[in-house]
Amino acid sequence: MKKIEKVVLAYSGGLDTSIILKWIKTNYDCEVVTMTADLGQGEEMDGIEEKALSTGAVKAYVEDMREEFVRDYVFPMFRANALYEGRYLLGTAIARPLISKRMVEIAEMEGAQAVSHGATGKGNDQVRFELATMALNPRLQTIAPWREWELKSRTDLMNFAKENSIDIPVSRKKPWSIDANLLHTSFEGGELEDPWNAPGPDCYRNITPPEMCPDEPEEISIDFEAGDPIAINNVKYSPAALLAKLNELGGKHGIGRVDMVENRFVGMKSRGVYETPGGTILAAAHRDLEGLCMDREMMHLRDSLIPKYAEMVYYGYWFSPEREALQAMIDKSQEKVTGTVRVKLYKGNCVPLGRKSPFSLYSPELATFEEDYVYDQADAEGFIKLVGLRLKGRMQQSKWGGKDTEDSCE
Amino acid sequence: MKKIEKVVLAYSGGLDTSIILKWIKTNYDCEVVTMTADLGQGEEMDGIEEKALSTGAVKAYVEDMREEFVRDYVFPMFRANALYEGRYLLGTAIARPLISKRMVEIAEMEGAQAVSHGATGKGNDQVRFELATMALNPRLQTIAPWREWELKSRTDLMNFAKENSIDIPVSRKKPWSIDANLLHTSFEGGELEDPWNAPGPDCYRNITPPEMCPDEPEEISIDFEAGDPIAINNVKYSPAALLAKLNELGGKHGIGRVDMVENRFVGMKSRGVYETPGGTILAAAHRDLEGLCMDREMMHLRDSLIPKYAEMVYYGYWFSPEREALQAMIDKSQEKVTGTVRVKLYKGNCVPLGRKSPFSLYSPELATFEEDYVYDQADAEGFIKLVGLRLKGRMQQSKWGGKDTEDSCE
Amino acid sequence: MKKIEKVVLAYSGGLDTSIILKWIKTNYDCEVVTMTADLGQGEEMDGIEEKALSTGAVKAYVEDMREEFVRDYVFPMFRANALYEGRYLLGTAIARPLISKRMVEIAEMEGAQAVSHGATGKGNDQVRFELATMALNPRLQTIAPWREWELKSRTDLMNFAKENSIDIPVSRKKPWSIDANLLHTSFEGGELEDPWNAPGPDCYRNITPPEMCPDEPEEISIDFEAGDPIAINNVKYSPAALLAKLNELGGKHGIGRVDMVENRFVGMKSRGVYETPGGTILAAAHRDLEGLCMDREMMHLRDSLIPKYAEMVYYGYWFSPEREALQAMIDKSQEKVTGTVRVKLYKGNCVPLGRKSPFSLYSPELATFEEDYVYDQADAEGFIKLVGLRLKGRMQQSKWGGKDTEDSCE
Amino acid sequence: MKKIEKVVLAYSGGLDTSIILKWIKTNYDCEVVTMTADLGQGEEMDGIEEKALSTGAVKAYVEDMREEFVRDYVFPMFRANALYEGRYLLGTAIARPLISKRMVEIAEMEGAQAVSHGATGKGNDQVRFELATMALNPRLQTIAPWREWELKSRTDLMNFAKENSIDIPVSRKKPWSIDANLLHTSFEGGELEDPWNAPGPDCYRNITPPEMCPDEPEEISIDFEAGDPIAINNVKYSPAALLAKLNELGGKHGIGRVDMVENRFVGMKSRGVYETPGGTILAAAHRDLEGLCMDREMMHLRDSLIPKYAEMVYYGYWFSPEREALQAMIDKSQEKVTGTVRVKLYKGNCVPLGRKSPFSLYSPELATFEEDYVYDQADAEGFIKLVGLRLKGRMQQSKWGGKDTEDSCE
Repeated sequence: MKKIEKVVLAYSGGLDTSIILKWIKTNYDCEVVTMTADLGQGEEMDGIEEKALSTGAVKAYVEDMREEFVRDYVFPMFRANALYEGRYLLGTAIARPLISKRMVEIAEMEGAQAVSHGATGKGNDQVRFELATMALNPRLQTIAPWREWELKSRTDLMNFAKENSIDIPVSRKKPWSIDANLLHTSFEGGELEDPWNAPGPDCYRNITPPEMCPDEPEEISIDFEAGDPIAINNVKYSPAALLAKLNELGGKHGIGRVDMVENRFVGMKSRGVYETPGGTILAAAHRDLEGLCMDREMMHLRDSLIPKYAEMVYYGYWFSPEREALQAMIDKSQEKVTGTVRVKLYKGNCVPLGRKSPFSLYSPELATFEEDYVYDQADAEGFIKLVGLRLKGRMQQSKWGGKDTEDSCE
Repeated sequence: MKKIEKVVLAYSGGLDTSIILKWIKTNYDCEVVTMTADLGQGEEMDGIEEKALSTGAVKAYVEDMREEFVRDYVFPMFRANALYEGRYLLGTAIARPLISKRMVEIAEMEGAQAVSHGATGKGNDQVRFELATMALNPRLQTIAPWREWELKSRTDLMNFAKENSIDIPVSRKKPWSIDANLLHTSFEGGELEDPWNAPGPDCYRNITPPEMCPDEPEEISIDFEAGDPIAINNVKYSPAALLAKLNELGGKHGIGRVDMVENRFVGMKSRGVYETPGGTILAAAHRDLEGLCMDREMMHLRDSLIPKYAEMVYYGYWFSPEREALQAMIDKSQEKVTGTVRVKLYKGNCVPLGRKSPFSLYSPELATFEEDYVYDQADAEGFIKLVGLRLKGRMQQSKWGGKDTEDSCE
Repeated sequence: MKKIEKVVLAYSGGLDTSIILKWIKTNYDCEVVTMTADLGQGEEMDGIEEKALSTGAVKAYVEDMREEFVRDYVFPMFRANALYEGRYLLGTAIARPLISKRMVEIAEMEGAQAVSHGATGKGNDQVRFELATMALNPRLQTIAPWREWELKSRTDLMNFAKENSIDIPVSRKKPWSIDANLLHTSFEGGELEDPWNAPGPDCYRNITPPEMCPDEPEEISIDFEAGDPIAINNVKYSPAALLAKLNELGGKHGIGRVDMVENRFVGMKSRGVYETPGGTILAAAHRDLEGLCMDREMMHLRDSLIPKYAEMVYYGYWFSPEREALQAMIDKSQEKVTGTVRVKLYKGNCVPLGRKSPFSLYSPELATFEEDYVYDQADAEGFIKLVGLRLKGRMQQSKWGGKDTEDSCE
Repeated sequence: MKKIEKVVLAYSGGLDTSIILKWIKTNYDCEVVTMTADLGQGEEMDGIEEKALSTGAVKAYVEDMREEFVRDYVFPMFRANALYEGRYLLGTAIARPLISKRMVEIAEMEGAQAVSHGATGKGNDQVRFELATMALNPRLQTIAPWREWELKSRTDLMNFAKENSIDIPVSRKKPWSIDANLLHTSFEGGELEDPWNAPGPDCYRNITPPEMCPDEPEEISIDFEAGDPIAINNVKYSPAALLAKLNELGGKHGIGRVDMVENRFVGMKSRGVYETPGGTILAAAHRDLEGLCMDREMMHLRDSLIPKYAEMVYYGYWFSPEREALQAMIDKSQEKVTGTVRVKLYKGNCVPLGRKSPFSLYSPELATFEEDYVYDQADAEGFIKLVGLRLKGRMQQSKWGGKDTEDSCE
């Protein structure tokens, strides 16, 4: 292993990564370059650079990656209708590979030997950061302070901060851990650690509790092109702007909360509460449009692979041959997923009302119960006889297999 | 083929099956035995027997199959979290095999040569009825009048009814076709045939439109045992009574509407609106409890098979070796899915608030971000290095495969 | 339906399709254009055109499609390692879509309203021909004489032939039905209809019985590029020439016989014997090279989809959105499947002896049991602890779920 | 962690586990109980007990587990047709869980705190041993000397042996590492570490090289009951005796060699050569019989899960909820896999010649090309029209979706 002389650290500006910055400098006797990604987490980016430098960084990158995030990570994942364990829209998981990619790029530009992150040793994020790094540049080392240092409690951290003149925010400790970006906000820990406890009224950030939402439903339309949303109410938006707009609408109408116990990649179960207002609307509208435009067998095959795709993203295998190959299949399936969906938003509900498409596979003539000239009902008889032939055989297994085959067919 | 002397007809008492009864008698010159199944469709069963006999049946069976329906068909299917094309809870599909099973039993008791149903030649139900019959008694023939007769329009039917003295209900023609049972109500046809049209305000039967639901949320608890619900708010119910109670609660709070374009087994797309109030609550609570009690790999494997299981049920392969074998796997997966889920019902929302189980796999010590003594964070490093090893190889493909091969392998 | 004025018939020059040619002309009172595809079946193409014209065709196409067949159909399928029901290399199935594609093209050029084929109503080929036609030009009708005509026995056919002055070959009736092309020869029917009967010594066409093969093994090398074979023993070949060369080698050494009972798409089981000499070598060498160059997770995902892919091809869904999307994934997985495999051929055995690749993922340093500096064995401990964590939980389900969580972790 | 006072060691009597025995005693200052399992590896069991005791064990178990191994591990796995990465019959992988199970039982009887094994830190076996232990008794610790000690080279080991008076066998070092049991023998390492090298003539143990096999083919019959073999040539055998008999036959005729590069669970690729003579015959005969007795959809579903099942076994997840649930499905699928298969053995070839079953699903009347009265060929037309309906839609996507939408939907 090479001596580490320079490290690129994923830096949020908060207490923990400030401590990490100092700790790495001291412990590894090396330079630290910080990278702060704006993924739409809604926190202040102003002053981050100064803060990093004043805490000891030799250089501080602050990167607006919102468009890349939504266009190249969120949208491809939504093309796949990815849901982890049937419910989680993967808001945290999808952000990690992009952050790692940028850190690797900066490490290569800066000639660093390692990258570092503030994820703990019990969670998924450490795995996601490090798998992405290994995939993109296997020569880069990773420093994971939470797995290395001796600071075992909050008190240890506070003491370290004080000793190293790091500002400690005065705000009261939040009762949970939060991760946020343009796609979602997650809540973990604290009172949520007992899975029987309902989240309290404070456990909301971007979504209005349904009970406090407007009494009037709002109907919107979303236009899709090849599986990606491109317009809301006939107004075109860039990817990040579109997701932001959907977040605003979903948040206003109480849409997109999930409360679940999920399985981490590192082996234990954890409980999380997620807010994904825009993503929830997007997922509902996208699947609805697929109903109109996607071939049945294509859909059933794809559906059987959603759990696998979601697992790949959740575990951190975004940059992997299997995710890329599966994405090729998914993207192929989306070529005709173009059209418009009307959705009603109302107090937590997101209800598709209608859908249309230039590539609709729906034929009213075929579906109607009324008389038609397209479909000969008599065809159904031959169809049923043949799709059921094997079932008839089952009851005759003993007969056909027995010696008197002659008798068996009447 | 044997001469048909007696037929068992699935009889609802409505206009269509009354016409069919007459038509079969006349056309096949045979006796007709009717079978009317009470699956909780909420229609009047009184008087059905008399009506069948007076329309020409030689015998009329009226069977209360609600408990068998929920216990042996609905619950096993919900153990599998079955969802067709991501949304449809299969309320019609799951009822057909049971009706067929009873018809076959009666046909065998009565010495009939055929069974008959009123499903059209364009839908899924004909397939479901006939596959079940083929699987249970391949010697029984099926008469499918809609595929055989010359009555091509509603006017033809009315004329046939008049000529044969069959009562025509005076009620105005409904703008859609309805199917109902204890699990759900479906709406198809009419104004819904244009998938861009939103369903009108009349397109509701058992569910209160969210806008008209109580302003107060209601919290309930559901107890499960080995994957099946057994109690609501600590009160035990029989399967059918439990589902009825959940329907009442869900209906009151506007829960369980689905509006979608789906793919029929016979090859075309159709648009349906479904009400599954109790089933929607049940599905949400069941999956939520699984989060706590089911092993991760078990869940991911099972999730990848849900589309296949749902397809089997939707297509009519309930009585098939593949469904039965898959059910064996599902049931095995449910042995420890025992516990309680708290759910909040509010204007269309069904939100799990908390869950507990005597077989919980959740360990707060493992999940917490606080210090613990169970899990050594350092283990994560070895874990990540090995689960990522193959990704490092990828970047080194050319290196490993490159000059080494030439140097050492020839 | 439009009046049929011109039909394109898949014409082999044999008795059956000659009868069909006449029958269509007479029965439909229309013109018949024949299309004979050379897919390497090894039959005489000379004189086919004259024969077709003299039997009544208005025009006769004879098409050499060998290169297209191997390059665009056989090779893509072998990239997927397709095996139907674990054994059948799909030699007949893969030829049908290409024949249909050419028939559709000719029908469009010639302004025909229908295509026709000589496949019976009990087999898979009718489905494959007609699905391809429906996919490529849904307005074209298909005439399937075997499902339509009154000629129910061999005697009926002979009589029809005599009445219509069609030459009847004097050769003795073969005891089975044969289909052949560059990829394979199949035997069905006759003595093979009893699945307990072993195929007799005459049931060989291109493969030497192992007992009569050379006593000396032969070692060959095959070079692959992105999943496709390009050279044998360092000599480059075109796709069709390469497959022909492998057929020669495999046939000489008795390689590539399969004898199996398989499941047809139309619902019954049938027994077939297949000769696929070159394809068997190709499949073995291809999979062997993948062992060296393909990522583990990519391979496991792909392997789980082989049965589905093979089913698509077998059933006749070559031209379908699901096959094309899955192919996109497969092709992506093959980008680095480049290298060389040494194979020993000997009396029915096809044994990979060694493999190398510029994109090898095999690292001797990683795999060796000897000391190394790449892999820290201590990492395995953390890995095992985390991949097994969930299993430990299982034994503690009752404890963790019980009231005294505190006690449960030692 | 509890102090370790007693350890149960998997002991082969060879040099490595003798060294381990001593090393554990010294290093952990504890008692060592040895367990030697006879799984049919064909090594001397006599004298093992004395050797263990004289090397320092306080107690030595020698267990004949051959019948349990074949009946409860090998046969269930063969019911599933398990093949890892398309080729490996899992001979080593399937033995590990049974050894662990017995070690855990002995540890519990003896009051030991830990178990130990001689597997290295780079292979799969460490994982298999330890996952089984974690699953069966999560409180037991595992000592893995190869991951812990300072003995880094063969020389270090020799020195340790000399210092501790452990007998060093005089036999020349074998050029590879061997694992053997009733199911198979594996060869790894040494000259095989270069995947381009063909295995030399010494790399054979139980299989005669095809070139040296008898010139006369031998035909045998195997009877199966519910998926398990019960008799050879009409003679019934116990499970272990049956597998031994098949090994003898397969070995004599050169059957069952595999040479491949495979993917280990710990992340790297390795190259192995396997001999599985009896298992190869068994797998071929079993699949062949399934062709006759197993329903098509059951088989296709099962086939899609073989890679997953094989992965579970290979990775060491025998004792896991997902393997047990999948086994429940597999076993259900085998209920009617009863019958007899004729197989020809000849110089490396294992060729099914015929098969019969009391539960045959094959009907000659259905399959024949001759006239019949069971199957109406006209049914195929309706079948094809409906299974292809969705493909026709695809070409009409723009039409159906096109002007209709504008005209009627706005």
